[in-house]
Amino acid sequence: MANKKTTNIILFSGDYDKAMAAYIIANGAAAYDHEVTIFHTFWGLNALRKDEQINVQKGFMEKMFAKMMPRGADKMGLSKMNFAGFGPKMIKDIMKKHNAMTLPQLIEMAQEQEINLVACTMTMDLLGLKEEELLENVEFAGVAAYLADAEDGNVNLFI
Amino acid sequence: MANKKTTNIILFSGDYDKAMAAYIIANGAAAYDHEVTIFHTFWGLNALRKDEQINVQKGFMEKMFAKMMPRGADKMGLSKMNFAGFGPKMIKDIMKKHNAMTLPQLIEMAQEQEINLVACTMTMDLLGLKEEELLENVEFAGVAAYLADAEDGNVNLFI
Amino acid sequence: MANKKTTNIILFSGDYDKAMAAYIIANGAAAYDHEVTIFHTFWGLNALRKDEQINVQKGFMEKMFAKMMPRGADKMGLSKMNFAGFGPKMIKDIMKKHNAMTLPQLIEMAQEQEINLVACTMTMDLLGLKEEELLENVEFAGVAAYLADAEDGNVNLFI
Repeated sequence: MANKKTTNIILFSGDYDKAMAAYIIANGAAAYDHEVTIFHTFWGLNALRKDEQINVQKGFMEKMFAKMMPRGADKMGLSKMNFAGFGPKMIKDIMKKHNAMTLPQLIEMAQEQEINLVACTMTMDLLGLKEEELLENVEFAGVAAYLADAEDGNVNLFI
Repeated sequence: MANKKTTNIILFSGDYDKAMAAYIIANGAAAYDHEVTIFHTFWGLNALRKDEQINVQKGFMEKMFAKMMPRGADKMGLSKMNFAGFGPKMIKDIMKKHNAMTLPQLIEMAQEQEINLVACTMTMDLLGLKEEELLENVEFAGVAAYLADAEDGNVNLFI
Repeated sequence: MANKKTTNIILFSGDYDKAMAAYIIANGAAAYDHEVTIFHTFWGLNALRKDEQINVQKGFMEKMFAKMMPRGADKMGLSKMNFAGFGPKMIKDIMKKHNAMTLPQLIEMAQEQEINLVACTMTMDLLGLKEEELLENVEFAGVAAYLADAEDGNVNLFI
């Protein structure tokens, strides 16, 4: 038990393709019996947003951010060749053709594999995101918790 | 032998400057006697494309991706200040002036130093890239092979 | 002493938000008694530029780069939703409201915590940046120094 290998991924990016890469590595590591944590910070938090609108009280700036940021994994753009939203559609069509898992499916699989999905409380506060706007079974923590995991980790990545 | 240090880089990015950074670190680590692997996934695969057109059968979407993505390291853009292709030219002019190695030269050096250049089969499939379109002496593997290397690695980076 | 934990961050990005993430992790790790190094390379060097103009002799290309790149941490753009400079202003307003530390304050704190701020000499040369254009108490080193630190590091990240 004490020497179970661990993978700790910081997901900073809000890009669909980068989040896919993060979740593919995470699911792979869980399948190889690693203890896996994905720490979502900044734009990476968008992967954890519920896709419906949640009524919570927000200030003006927080409302603007909430409006401008994608609501959930399925609405995120690509890091390259986004073409005003056409790129993600192309990628998703190709993924369907190849029976590849979509990002929402990869996140669901991660939850089934008991990967720790953590939302960074400091950036939630900054971007005005409330706990009830994020998926169920997400943990809330700060950079100290990340470091406690990562300092003994085998695979540490910033994506 | 058993305790040879290892460096494992995931090259996700298709940017000229980021790929340069990856290959500079990799070549440095090989010079310091690390076992080095660069695992090319998503847009990072473009660094391994041959610069001529290779005739392979592709579906419509795969053809479109193949056309839109840069064919080989020399044609990749910058992550910052790309200015519709003017940025890479500026950088290359400056590199020439300083006798710095270009990305194609860094890749050649990596092959001479026996750095393992791996292409991610899952994203090759997704982007419709065939083995014969990539450079010689490239290995083909998936995320499981990456994790097997990385879990005992000294320097693991996602670029 | 010999087993003090270490965190080694390569800051490649010139984005305000990514640099913030790097410095927040670094300051956190230093607070938990890690030996911390941030190795600034490529656009990440801009975080270390002094905000006033320094008179140094440069060639034409170096002058152009110097003009186009942000002069210091406070002038860097966002990786997402930059909106021609409006995004950074929004983020800074929100940070002020939440009493969050700005990037220049995070850098100052890093220096107080004796985090090693290293500037990559190879890319300084390439981008035409001179030692006197960067902040005081910055070290100058190359990829070999980075690898020597990172190969025994606990948390190695590329940002």
